[in-house]
Amino acid sequence: MVPAKVPGAVQLDWANAHDWQPYWKADNFKQYDWMEDVYWLYSAQLKRPALTNGERLHFYCGGIDYRFEIRLDGVTLLRQEGMFTPVDLDITERAVDGSRIEVLVYPAPKMHASPVDRSQAAQSCKPAVSYGWDWHPRLIPLGIWCETYLEVRPAVHLVNVSTAYTLSEDLSQAHLEIEAHLNASAVGSVTFTLGDPDGKDVFARTVSIECPTVSLAERIDSPCLWWSHDHGEQARYLLKTTVRTENGGVSETTQHIGFRRVRLVMHEGAWNAPAGFPKTRSTPPITLELNGRRIFAKGTNWVNPEIFPGIMSEETYRPLLELARGAHFNLLRIWGGGIVNKPSFFDLCDQMGIMVWQEFPLACNDYIGTTEYLAVLDQESQSIIKQLRGHPSLALWCGGNELFNAWSGMTDQSKALRLLNKNCYELDQNTPYLPTSPVMGMAHGDYRFRDETGREVYGIFGDAAGTAYTEFGCPGPSSRAALESFMPTEDLFPPKRGTPWETHHGLGAWEMDPGTWLCQSTIEHYFGPTQTLDELIERGQWLQCEGYKAIYEEARRQKPVCSMSLNWCYNEPWPAAANNSLIEWPATPKPAYYAVAASCRPVLASARLPKFSWREGEDFTAELWLLNDAYATIPKREIVVSVTANGSETHLLTWHSGEAQPNRNLRGPGVRFRLPHYDSDRITLRVTVAGNPDWNSEYVLHYRARDQKNTQPAKRILNV
Amino acid sequence: MVPAKVPGAVQLDWANAHDWQPYWKADNFKQYDWMEDVYWLYSAQLKRPALTNGERLHFYCGGIDYRFEIRLDGVTLLRQEGMFTPVDLDITERAVDGSRIEVLVYPAPKMHASPVDRSQAAQSCKPAVSYGWDWHPRLIPLGIWCETYLEVRPAVHLVNVSTAYTLSEDLSQAHLEIEAHLNASAVGSVTFTLGDPDGKDVFARTVSIECPTVSLAERIDSPCLWWSHDHGEQARYLLKTTVRTENGGVSETTQHIGFRRVRLVMHEGAWNAPAGFPKTRSTPPITLELNGRRIFAKGTNWVNPEIFPGIMSEETYRPLLELARGAHFNLLRIWGGGIVNKPSFFDLCDQMGIMVWQEFPLACNDYIGTTEYLAVLDQESQSIIKQLRGHPSLALWCGGNELFNAWSGMTDQSKALRLLNKNCYELDQNTPYLPTSPVMGMAHGDYRFRDETGREVYGIFGDAAGTAYTEFGCPGPSSRAALESFMPTEDLFPPKRGTPWETHHGLGAWEMDPGTWLCQSTIEHYFGPTQTLDELIERGQWLQCEGYKAIYEEARRQKPVCSMSLNWCYNEPWPAAANNSLIEWPATPKPAYYAVAASCRPVLASARLPKFSWREGEDFTAELWLLNDAYATIPKREIVVSVTANGSETHLLTWHSGEAQPNRNLRGPGVRFRLPHYDSDRITLRVTVAGNPDWNSEYVLHYRARDQKNTQPAKRILNV
Repeated sequence: MVPAKVPGAVQLDWANAHDWQPYWKADNFKQYDWMEDVYWLYSAQLKRPALTNGERLHFYCGGIDYRFEIRLDGVTLLRQEGMFTPVDLDITERAVDGSRIEVLVYPAPKMHASPVDRSQAAQSCKPAVSYGWDWHPRLIPLGIWCETYLEVRPAVHLVNVSTAYTLSEDLSQAHLEIEAHLNASAVGSVTFTLGDPDGKDVFARTVSIECPTVSLAERIDSPCLWWSHDHGEQARYLLKTTVRTENGGVSETTQHIGFRRVRLVMHEGAWNAPAGFPKTRSTPPITLELNGRRIFAKGTNWVNPEIFPGIMSEETYRPLLELARGAHFNLLRIWGGGIVNKPSFFDLCDQMGIMVWQEFPLACNDYIGTTEYLAVLDQESQSIIKQLRGHPSLALWCGGNELFNAWSGMTDQSKALRLLNKNCYELDQNTPYLPTSPVMGMAHGDYRFRDETGREVYGIFGDAAGTAYTEFGCPGPSSRAALESFMPTEDLFPPKRGTPWETHHGLGAWEMDPGTWLCQSTIEHYFGPTQTLDELIERGQWLQCEGYKAIYEEARRQKPVCSMSLNWCYNEPWPAAANNSLIEWPATPKPAYYAVAASCRPVLASARLPKFSWREGEDFTAELWLLNDAYATIPKREIVVSVTANGSETHLLTWHSGEAQPNRNLRGPGVRFRLPHYDSDRITLRVTVAGNPDWNSEYVLHYRARDQKNTQPAKRILNV
Repeated sequence: MVPAKVPGAVQLDWANAHDWQPYWKADNFKQYDWMEDVYWLYSAQLKRPALTNGERLHFYCGGIDYRFEIRLDGVTLLRQEGMFTPVDLDITERAVDGSRIEVLVYPAPKMHASPVDRSQAAQSCKPAVSYGWDWHPRLIPLGIWCETYLEVRPAVHLVNVSTAYTLSEDLSQAHLEIEAHLNASAVGSVTFTLGDPDGKDVFARTVSIECPTVSLAERIDSPCLWWSHDHGEQARYLLKTTVRTENGGVSETTQHIGFRRVRLVMHEGAWNAPAGFPKTRSTPPITLELNGRRIFAKGTNWVNPEIFPGIMSEETYRPLLELARGAHFNLLRIWGGGIVNKPSFFDLCDQMGIMVWQEFPLACNDYIGTTEYLAVLDQESQSIIKQLRGHPSLALWCGGNELFNAWSGMTDQSKALRLLNKNCYELDQNTPYLPTSPVMGMAHGDYRFRDETGREVYGIFGDAAGTAYTEFGCPGPSSRAALESFMPTEDLFPPKRGTPWETHHGLGAWEMDPGTWLCQSTIEHYFGPTQTLDELIERGQWLQCEGYKAIYEEARRQKPVCSMSLNWCYNEPWPAAANNSLIEWPATPKPAYYAVAASCRPVLASARLPKFSWREGEDFTAELWLLNDAYATIPKREIVVSVTANGSETHLLTWHSGEAQPNRNLRGPGVRFRLPHYDSDRITLRVTVAGNPDWNSEYVLHYRARDQKNTQPAKRILNV
């Protein structure tokens, strides 16, 4: 028997009671192995509040992870599988003062005993990531993970209020439908009051209660629209619903409504492909259209910000989302291997104007449509949709991650995905549904700066023609501070298997490339042997910065065929030794974060580069672009290109750019320059825009003089 | 006021009453133009039968085309849009002897007044074909098109009996669920009796009536399976359902059940593609798996066998289906531009072992998901699914034709297709659902022997890599008898625009190629100027035969990547001057029918040819194959190849083929032969299989001697 914190996780309670060291340090997580296979029992004694006037006593719990029973004084009130469906039990008749309420949590669901990997999650709605991933340890949370409380409610009270609306084609009218669901009928009325974004009343209507569902339909003219932060205001209306019944009971709730229309549309020119006979189909639409405006989606893949969802809260989300907005991200893909975030996440996204692509908990497995699995998926998906559909930031439903690829083996015929399509259609018809990512035309990967055949991100993405790059990565080591936080000093350098470098994903993380995610051989391919930890970090992070800039900007150059650029991944659930992430756990930006933020500015001057490493005497080449995702005309500008090394700057070219139309890029001239001798291991390409320094860009590239065999690490580190 | 025939069509009634010439002759169909825009009223006086013991009187109608009202003595009982939802009205309380029942039929639905083409059908569930197609005149049927009658039923009676089953993974057990739906509850019982395919009782169960739906679940061990005709027996069980109630009323129905499991699965090797990063998805599955066996689907696209569905009956379907079976076809695609056939069609397919791919009535338009349209589509699709789901031959649901192509503009996000997916999932979960044809990897077209760039079917399909060829065509002129049946003698030759050659699709049929479907310039490209009608017919049909053989056999050679070969089209709704069809209206095979039948034999020796036309002195080449779609090992064989011209046969090669594994083709050697001088315009390539003459093949190719400028028509026609 140990004290439990709710919300939380049984693992944390146990560790806390036994004074264990943090699970995120070194290899401590291995201590938790046994916990996934045992039963856990939460137990509490109730203090029954006084009930008057027919009031009801409810036990409410937002979510229990994963399979459980709820008992009151030994009587089982509920058995459930699934962590995303809240529990709401009327215990008025059963609970007495001193009653014992218990939550029995079952062992983690496993389809089979071995292999001990993500495939064990293939017959459940338990997020697969905690079964082990290339950036997540094997550590499977269990327990009460959401807010849990007793609540006294009036005899007749609101269960929930659901809203739905359609916007007229020209967006000038919203047809709003509201349904207030009561627990029972009564003599009385429901008052609906809608306030506009400035707090002014739009309407106040009182409807008498005829049955437990009370409906109202209203037309709103010229509604203020909700926009992503890079395109407009985050207008939200406030709906207040008040139930008043004969016996004086009052039940009230407020909620926001944001009017927006999101569609997935075909990109310009898409219908011209494929040409000729025999003719197959065009690739499916993946361009986001928000309120009639095609939007280039710049963003990232969000993963669980903690291993234990029970300790995530608004305080966890806020700094990460502020950074996301700061990086000009307008879309977050909430990857299907992880959890569905708590309501505060979506409230923040609504407020900050960040669109959300929400996946259901399916990832990289073949979720076979057995009756048992489909029943749980049906329940869980309905709960998720009902909980989130009211958020204007919710832009896209998706069945899950990489389900149509060989390692998963699902197809368009898989019942699980047909069921999800059906539930999304029934419950939230106006939000697009993708069965998985990628669908045809979209692309995932590569996840390295340089692949096993020697191709670099410049060539890999320069040659690609994806309609959306919704996963791609460049790994980088974590900062010294992060590494020191979880790794014994003696393991820090050189990185070795069998140390936390391995368990924290720096070595042997990704099966197909044993050097991941540190990728030391790639670092040494460019720079030669590494002498110190700081050198390793600096070089690895340099590659990560330049790699990400190359991909994000190349994706933008491929507009309008391409309409999305989302790197893998944004954040991490614990400290990694090296990772594709932009943010170190819990919320510290890596240098790559700033590089990506620069590449995602709505307007910037950009250089298309053929490669990273250059030599004396070689012709340096680059192509200039003005990237414009803004719905504004960019006037003519003088754009100056220079190369700098060791403090000496050479002007190469001035581009007198024409006007750039709204949401259109401009392709500019090519630069060619015979590289002279520099006493430096790097050159900096600067692209500066006269009058708009906020559009300037800079690329730091590797350089090798003729007499240099390799870089000279000690010296250069002093320069940094 | 004119007499009406039911089922039928208002157009036929009017024409009949006015002694019009047949609509299918010459340009008579143009007389009917005005009829699509007026209201029509059916009117009849009822003779009320005597009702005893609480019996009910019902007015039943299987379908009314398209929008209508039903009135009894001036009172509107029903308003409906949609021809596929039957009408079943209890008129016991309202009808008296002499009552007048009326059916008011609205004008044909049109989204807009112009253009006068298929796009007018884009907001209705009216099959689009009758609005005009490249092989169908503009002639839009209206009226009562299905069986219609009064029926006296016991007070409590069966409304319908629905069955559903799942087969265990190893097919050794069927879990059968039966629901008998009564119009009301009563004291009494329902008896379910199931007989096996030999007539032996499997079970007889009597269940007492507790509520209007009476259910039974039974397990059937080692069920006999239903197979397509080329793979096994068409085992069908017979279910008899009898309702007996307290007051002596008896209601009974019988229906067949065929147990089969159909899936769409990935072809062998499919998961290896795409390789490398960035990685998109594999193409979706399109290989039919029947009872665990992957089946190469050989078949065709079925179109309305009549312009007026009201005159289609079992007698219309039977000869066409017998011919289909005779051509070794195991799959018919019921194209979404046409109607959903009557129940007898599916009964025949069940009996004959022909699988059916059924599309919903959407074709080549953007069916925008307005509330009104979706409501009709929801009703109509549910009716269609409920009516057909019990047929074992029903192998595949499909949203409609070419919806993901430029000329339609629908996408995976279109609400209509998401709704259809949902309804199919809810009502017939175990039958696959395709949103449209083609989906990615599948291919439609070309529809000509030779395209505008000079490529022939040999090259076009030899270079292609489709997962399924579900539409392709080679046009051929109709027979002299067919042409003479509808065309004035003076128009027969030479073919000219402004004659029935044009209105019956021989000239200017297909917008992108004005010579279609006669394609005289292609004929003359090979043979020079045409002197007579018979010459034109013989040459056009020759090209059609060889073209179709080339495509069907090439598709089979591309197994397992390719798994379907369905030509456009099988039949025709009226006499065409020229068409891609294999069968002349109503049911006369063209020579191409026999050519295709030969190419679709389960086992055959086949030659892969590079082209159609050969010259003296040139090296003739071909590659030999043994095509095997049978689940049988084909023993070693001696396969002999020869070329014959003008009666002289030259043996080129004997291939000692190895064993062919079940459902595996064998690729053989190439033939090379310097063509000598022949006094002939053709050479015949014969591939003969010692001991299996039923596997022999023959290809008749064009030949030109050095001294020949062109063929000499008069002579050769005598030879034929």
